Amino acid sequence: MCDIDKLSLLSEKMDLILQGKIKDNNINEIISNIKAIVENFKEGSTGIAQLNPIAGDIEYNSKKVIKYISYAQKIGLDTVIFPELALMGYPIEDTIDRHPVIVEENIKWLEEIAKLTTVTTAIVGFVEPRKYDNGTGKKYYNSLAILSHGEIQGIVRKSLLPNYSEFNDYRYIEPSPVVGIQPPETLKIFDEDKVCECEKTNIINNIRYGISICEDCWNNKHFFSATLYDKDPIDELSKENPDIFINCSASPSRAKKEQLKHNMLSFIAKHYSTPIVYVNQVGAIDNSSFDGSSRVFGKDGELIARAKSFEEQFLIVNPLKGIGKIYPLTKGLEQSLTEEKIFTLNYDNDLERTYKTIIQGIRDYFRKNGLERACLGLSGGLDSTVCAVLMADAIGKENVFGISMPSKITSLESRSDAELLAANIGINFAEMPIKEMVDTTNKVFTDLFKDIEKKWDCRYKKSFTQDNIQARSRAMYLWGISNEFSKCIPIATSDKSELYMGYATINGDMSGGFAPIADVPKTKLFAFARWMNINRKEKNAIPEAIILKRPGAELAIDEKTGKPLIAEDALMPYEFLDEVIWRIENKHEYYQDMINSEFLYEKGHIVSNEKKIQWLDKFYGRMASSLYKWSILPPSVIVESRSINKYDYKQPITSSHINYKGTDEETISTILKEAACI
Amino acid sequence: MCDIDKLSLLSEKMDLILQGKIKDNNINEIISNIKAIVENFKEGSTGIAQLNPIAGDIEYNSKKVIKYISYAQKIGLDTVIFPELALMGYPIEDTIDRHPVIVEENIKWLEEIAKLTTVTTAIVGFVEPRKYDNGTGKKYYNSLAILSHGEIQGIVRKSLLPNYSEFNDYRYIEPSPVVGIQPPETLKIFDEDKVCECEKTNIINNIRYGISICEDCWNNKHFFSATLYDKDPIDELSKENPDIFINCSASPSRAKKEQLKHNMLSFIAKHYSTPIVYVNQVGAIDNSSFDGSSRVFGKDGELIARAKSFEEQFLIVNPLKGIGKIYPLTKGLEQSLTEEKIFTLNYDNDLERTYKTIIQGIRDYFRKNGLERACLGLSGGLDSTVCAVLMADAIGKENVFGISMPSKITSLESRSDAELLAANIGINFAEMPIKEMVDTTNKVFTDLFKDIEKKWDCRYKKSFTQDNIQARSRAMYLWGISNEFSKCIPIATSDKSELYMGYATINGDMSGGFAPIADVPKTKLFAFARWMNINRKEKNAIPEAIILKRPGAELAIDEKTGKPLIAEDALMPYEFLDEVIWRIENKHEYYQDMINSEFLYEKGHIVSNEKKIQWLDKFYGRMASSLYKWSILPPSVIVESRSINKYDYKQPITSSHINYKGTDEETISTILKEAACI
Repeated sequence: MCDIDKLSLLSEKMDLILQGKIKDNNINEIISNIKAIVENFKEGSTGIAQLNPIAGDIEYNSKKVIKYISYAQKIGLDTVIFPELALMGYPIEDTIDRHPVIVEENIKWLEEIAKLTTVTTAIVGFVEPRKYDNGTGKKYYNSLAILSHGEIQGIVRKSLLPNYSEFNDYRYIEPSPVVGIQPPETLKIFDEDKVCECEKTNIINNIRYGISICEDCWNNKHFFSATLYDKDPIDELSKENPDIFINCSASPSRAKKEQLKHNMLSFIAKHYSTPIVYVNQVGAIDNSSFDGSSRVFGKDGELIARAKSFEEQFLIVNPLKGIGKIYPLTKGLEQSLTEEKIFTLNYDNDLERTYKTIIQGIRDYFRKNGLERACLGLSGGLDSTVCAVLMADAIGKENVFGISMPSKITSLESRSDAELLAANIGINFAEMPIKEMVDTTNKVFTDLFKDIEKKWDCRYKKSFTQDNIQARSRAMYLWGISNEFSKCIPIATSDKSELYMGYATINGDMSGGFAPIADVPKTKLFAFARWMNINRKEKNAIPEAIILKRPGAELAIDEKTGKPLIAEDALMPYEFLDEVIWRIENKHEYYQDMINSEFLYEKGHIVSNEKKIQWLDKFYGRMASSLYKWSILPPSVIVESRSINKYDYKQPITSSHINYKGTDEETISTILKEAACI
Repeated sequence: MCDIDKLSLLSEKMDLILQGKIKDNNINEIISNIKAIVENFKEGSTGIAQLNPIAGDIEYNSKKVIKYISYAQKIGLDTVIFPELALMGYPIEDTIDRHPVIVEENIKWLEEIAKLTTVTTAIVGFVEPRKYDNGTGKKYYNSLAILSHGEIQGIVRKSLLPNYSEFNDYRYIEPSPVVGIQPPETLKIFDEDKVCECEKTNIINNIRYGISICEDCWNNKHFFSATLYDKDPIDELSKENPDIFINCSASPSRAKKEQLKHNMLSFIAKHYSTPIVYVNQVGAIDNSSFDGSSRVFGKDGELIARAKSFEEQFLIVNPLKGIGKIYPLTKGLEQSLTEEKIFTLNYDNDLERTYKTIIQGIRDYFRKNGLERACLGLSGGLDSTVCAVLMADAIGKENVFGISMPSKITSLESRSDAELLAANIGINFAEMPIKEMVDTTNKVFTDLFKDIEKKWDCRYKKSFTQDNIQARSRAMYLWGISNEFSKCIPIATSDKSELYMGYATINGDMSGGFAPIADVPKTKLFAFARWMNINRKEKNAIPEAIILKRPGAELAIDEKTGKPLIAEDALMPYEFLDEVIWRIENKHEYYQDMINSEFLYEKGHIVSNEKKIQWLDKFYGRMASSLYKWSILPPSVIVESRSINKYDYKQPITSSHINYKGTDEETISTILKEAACI
């Protein structure tokens, strides 16, 4: 067995030990074996500590950090590198502004960690208070401390601050005017007017490092056709000819982003003929699921090493000597959709990534918030089915309760499908009809509405009241369970296509403590269910009948058919609907663009222009009145390249009257002239 | 009657006509009368068009703009000035990124508006697409167009972009590298590398103007002890010795902000010996309520004119000649709390502002989103009472339905207080007990929980399930009404103190389409109720019994007293609770700071150290587990200087394990050394 294989084997064992998953009394022997191997490539030897922190839990994060530093010291590494803001967790947002004590805390812990360092250099992310005498700018930097020999050796501060999508760095962080390392004396009192003219790169054990933070490496003008900032920190660092670039990041998993990241890092390494070590956070915080997949590229841009995706790991590498293991990447992270410019129903390439992104999102939300159990309604439909499987896989089947809550509209098949699904995946199951609740509510409503009608002459002839009583009764059950059993939350089962259409009931199916599939469109969910049937341990857990069934909420009867209303009949074909979403999110198209384009659906079906207009009008009308619903959606994992998650996308509810159709100049002129007449 | 009084009288009439509130066949006579007066102070004569736009509704906003331009032309003003982003409405947020068609639209409307201008110069805010050839930075500017003689004469772009609290400008707007005016040819193709070396101020009818946008004037280093940006656009403009500064703003009403604004504007005028015309947006968009109160300061810093607060208005002024009327300011806007550094229960100074801020917030949310009616539960308690009064005043008493929904815990007094209140304010009233719903739910729950207990050994001995059934049954009624009657939403009645404590039921009292008092602490609500009893048209509409009653949710019986549980007994005294909130929000204090401080409550009551620790522990524990609830709260008006409104304050839910108490170095060192042992 060659050294590198042996190293990987030992490392993997150490990971399990360090994560507390196994005990091994021979730990010292393992450590000395690793040390013996590392000695062969000491200069430039690097430990990538791909951590999963908890936002704001300084003690928890610091304990992880010191454990990995201690390990790195024992095996004699030159450096050990942590993700961005390792002590604080990313994102932390306004918390540091309202509760500045946690910033003080993270400095205290940092300083104590520094004291415990020895010859191994540790690079640790933290929030740094700014010298605020001159009183300009924001209160904090996003910084890295370079620690060794019991002391802080220097500080690197982030220059480029992302402020799009789920990122809000610029809200509370001041951009550093200088890239690279500054002296340790500048900690907390860095004076931007007195930037040290020292070298911006630093030498550790004879190797010169150019160190940066996350967004700092995302602005290469040769790689990107458009960039967000003027400055390119990597380019500045390159002037001092570092031997190795290091980038400490917290970069979440999103569709279409990963190949870009891979190619960019490879490009940087090759462009500057300098290896780059990219250390990424892993784990989820609220709506963001970070994939880890830390990696190292050699000076020719070749991939040297890559850590696991969606798992905490300590990866030993040497970027100069090409040493490191390449762990397989979750499919979808690099087999990317970047180049796709047209809508497709072929989701295969992205399903493993989707699965792991969501599973981690659920698991970490539960673990980090002290939750253990979940209950959800099982309707026998696709959404609740996929949610049930995801929950079972994320938190353990014994911790999930699926409740079938049939109404008079619920078909027998739906009930048996739900039960079969529960049995297949092994979650707890109960059935509890909602008839009595619905009847009682109806009785109350009959009297109540009569009272109100006396005063208000605006009762709908046809309303959704009946439909919603059912959905709300079910949520009432689920929140009751959550109140009665400890550490348990209900799961909101709405999917992305339905949320766009507002086809979800407030305080009903869209209510819950977490919404696992809120960023997965319906057409992808079908593919996802099939993928899970093949790729999960229990094959074909999802009954074929559920996948074949045409989705419907089973809240109302279709007057035409006498059967439960099918969602596509109430809305429009999901294939068409999902393409509209895709065109808005990915191509920024508007109404008229879509009229002028041929949809995938139109290739297989004859769609009259009137029909298309009718669907688009319905889409925009329903979307406009759904903005409020988006604003009260529970936390959910962001999966796609763009989402309607409120932490990712901000549209005022009061902008729902936008006329998206576009107006011609002549009409505008006429309207204005009329309005000008006073 | 002197000219200025006559002018004001005529102007006020014209306001009513232009707003469609009255008809007057003598409109041409009024206009020529105004014109005759304006002719006496023509040079520098200015119309302040204090508009209330709808976010993203370009047609609606443009029609308002052209109407006021046309009016300004007819009365012969030199200039007419609109608030920031007048054509788009502020804020518009990511909408312009996802639906760029509305930016194209606002350009088309702007260009058509320009064609209709004559000798009067109009200054109109809009979103400007950037020349994106060089591909750096964000896609848009926040711009002003200077329009006259049928053409765009120049463009002013915003340099300083706020990105704190409810402001997110930097997400989608590129800061302009140059202050002041640039040539019209730069529209949509402004090249930052080829900034015109022309003058940055511009001459209109012999007067030189220095024009800026909102935040651009908030960075004076002589006025502020701390500033957010390096650059000071006003200082740059001052170099060319303008005769008048103009600042177009969209600045919402928040406690403690207004006196600051007043003093700052006065300071700028005096410091540069240059009058300043400050035009502010009025009206509310989602959570932000803009107060208007546009104003003019003379070169000695003296107030020359001030528009009404919380009302659309067209105010005619001449900043050079000291001409303009000073309308009274809503109390609380300038009789400010800025200087107060200690917590007080004396809210008097801020109650009128609080009232108008919320009333406008409700009214505009309804109007701009096509809503007309509201229903809410009337418990006979303070929160629902204050909400009912606010709703009646904001949308009309005939459009409000108060529903008393007593349970077996509800006292007879509560029921009669609720009815009396409804009668006093004249809203519709119905009573509908929740007994049947609660009984049915309980029956279901008995069976359901038995089923679940067989699998889950984690049933609480004492739970909130019973309490919450009541709150959720009530919300079920209210959402039913909302589904059955057109344009009607339920009102969430939670207050700020209770939200901090999570003392609100998900899908219960904290559920609704709008939450009017979510940013008002309980102790202020008492003062507010008394203030409304004195200051509303119907005196003493709120029964004294409601104000005197100690608040409680009437969801549970206190075992000790056998009576409904009092909130202060379940939580802590509101006076103490509200001071904790105040200290966190305004002084950024943490646990230990508060232990070391004397609370106002401690001045009047003996509080043992154990008791104080117990309250603080309860506060932090409850707050930490309330973060999720904050994230699903309906839109609500931001009132206080700091809030927990999710559009204003961002804290990851997964940061709830923060240890706010602070840790000493020795403890840290011990913990780390232990964690380092592997």
